[in-house]
Amino acid sequence: MSVYSHVLTQDGIIPKESLLYPFEERGLQFGDGVYEVIRIYQGSFDLLEEHIDRLYRSADAIRLKVPFIKTELIAALQKLTATNDVRTDAKLYLQITRGSATREHSFPDVPSNFYAYIEPSNRPVSSLQHGVRAILADDIRWDLCYIKSLNLLPNILAKQTAKEKGAYEAILHKQDTVTEGSSSNVFMIKDDILYTHPATVNILHGCVRARVLELAQQAGLQVKETAFRVENLLQADEVFITSTTSEIMPIIEIDAKQVGNGKPGSITRILQRAYEKACGIHVTAFA
Amino acid sequence: MSVYSHVLTQDGIIPKESLLYPFEERGLQFGDGVYEVIRIYQGSFDLLEEHIDRLYRSADAIRLKVPFIKTELIAALQKLTATNDVRTDAKLYLQITRGSATREHSFPDVPSNFYAYIEPSNRPVSSLQHGVRAILADDIRWDLCYIKSLNLLPNILAKQTAKEKGAYEAILHKQDTVTEGSSSNVFMIKDDILYTHPATVNILHGCVRARVLELAQQAGLQVKETAFRVENLLQADEVFITSTTSEIMPIIEIDAKQVGNGKPGSITRILQRAYEKACGIHVTAFA
Repeated sequence: MSVYSHVLTQDGIIPKESLLYPFEERGLQFGDGVYEVIRIYQGSFDLLEEHIDRLYRSADAIRLKVPFIKTELIAALQKLTATNDVRTDAKLYLQITRGSATREHSFPDVPSNFYAYIEPSNRPVSSLQHGVRAILADDIRWDLCYIKSLNLLPNILAKQTAKEKGAYEAILHKQDTVTEGSSSNVFMIKDDILYTHPATVNILHGCVRARVLELAQQAGLQVKETAFRVENLLQADEVFITSTTSEIMPIIEIDAKQVGNGKPGSITRILQRAYEKACGIHVTAFA
Repeated sequence: MSVYSHVLTQDGIIPKESLLYPFEERGLQFGDGVYEVIRIYQGSFDLLEEHIDRLYRSADAIRLKVPFIKTELIAALQKLTATNDVRTDAKLYLQITRGSATREHSFPDVPSNFYAYIEPSNRPVSSLQHGVRAILADDIRWDLCYIKSLNLLPNILAKQTAKEKGAYEAILHKQDTVTEGSSSNVFMIKDDILYTHPATVNILHGCVRARVLELAQQAGLQVKETAFRVENLLQADEVFITSTTSEIMPIIEIDAKQVGNGKPGSITRILQRAYEKACGIHVTAFA
C-alpha cells in the first residue's frame, strides 16, 4: 500500500483505508477502464497535461465518462500532492472504470469509479547509467493498444517472463515487426538515425516517447517513425526503451545478444542528459 | 447486487456486504484473473465439473493458483447454494485473481483472491422460442481467447454495440473467419451439416458448445468443427449461438439480413429439445 495516506476519488480526497470496492465492479470483473501513471519529481508533476490529455483520449475510445473536466482534474491532483505533502520523487497512479453494477457485458447506467494515489518512486539511477537486459516476446495483445486500458494480462505475462530470465523488459513483436515493450516504447539507433514504431493503434502513444522525439530533433538527430523488424533491432547500434518511470533506459543485451558494444551508446547518453534537463532534474545521473 | 446473501471466498462463506477489495488488487488494476459462470437449474448445478475443469485450465494458462483443490471447490460451491437455499433457476459467478498487492506488472508473492456468488437467472424462454438478432463485428481480441480471463474490454464493447443496434449478440470475425460471439459460441447449419469453429486458442471452449456437439452426434447429425467465413454464415440455413445462460439461442437475423426463413430452424429446434433433456429441465420451452 502507498505510504501516502490520502487518495483522490470522484467524491474528493479520502484516507486510503476507506477506499474499498464491492465485488461487482467493472474494473474488477471486465477490466473495463483506463489508467495513467504520472511522474512526480521532487513533489512536482512531469508531463501532467500530456498524461491527462491521453486519459481523456483513452476514455473516449471506450466511451467512458471521466468524472471531472480537465481543469478540475488537474486542480484535484495538485491538491492530492499537497494533502500528502509530497516532496520526493514519486509517481501517481489513476484509473477510471465504468462503475459498480450488477454484472452484465453491456454498459450500466451508473457513475464511473475514479481513484488516484501516490507512491514514492526513485529514479532507477544505476540502471539508467549501466543499461539493462531485454528479451523478445510475441505481441499477443488486442488490436487497440493505443488505448491505455486495464486489460493488461498479456503485458504482465510478458513482463513476468522477462523477470524470470533476469531481464528488465520484454520487447514485443507482431510477426517480425517490433511494436513496443510490455510497459514501454522501443527505440533503436542505426547509422545515427533514430527509429521507433509510428504512433498507430498498435502501440501506446507514450508521453515520454513524444518528448524523446522532440529532444532528438532539437539535438539535430534524424528521426524516423517507421516500423522495423526484429533482425534490424538485433543489428542496431543502440537500443533504448522509454516510459514514465524508466525514462530513457539503455538496452545493452537482447535475448543474451549484446547490443552494439554492450554499453549504453553515445546518442542514448545525449538524449538521457537532454531528458534530465527537460524534466528539470537538478541532480544528474550521468556526471 | 446479488439477492442471495452469502458469497464464497478463499476464507469461507461470508455475508456479501463484507466482501470488499482494496484499490491495489490485480483484477482491478490488470484484469489479472480468470472466471466462470455456471448454470443452476432449480437449485442444482449444470455442467459443474466441466466448468471447474476449464477454470483450472484457464488458471494454469496464466500461471495462477486456484486456492482450492477440485473436490474442495466443488464441495464449497455446493455448500454455497445450500447456505443461500437456492431453489430456483440461477447462475453462479466465480473469479480468481492474482491477489491484492502493490502495483507492479510482475507476479506478486501474495495469495490469490477468490470469490463466488449466486444470482437468480431465468431461462430466456421467449427468445429461445422466437430467436434473436445478431450483428457482425471485428474480432479485435488478443491471441489467447481460449483462456476465460477478466480482460473483457473488446467483448463488452462489441456487446454494447449489439445492444444499441437492437441485437442480442455480436458475432465476431477475424478478417473474414467467424470465430465466436462476444459471450457465446457460434454454430451454423448448411445442407443438414452442423458447423462451428474448431476449439483452437482463438475461441473459448464452451461447455455448452461441447454438449451441443455431443447431442448433435447422438441425433445423427453430421458435425464439422471447421472454421467458416462470414459469407458462409450469411448463406446458412440455420444459425444459433450457445452459452451457459443463452443455452441454444436461434439467430434469425444477422446485420438486418434474414437467416433462412427468418424463424428458428428445425434442426435448431431438435437440438434445443435435446438440450433441455440433457439439463434435466422438466418444463419445456417448446411445447
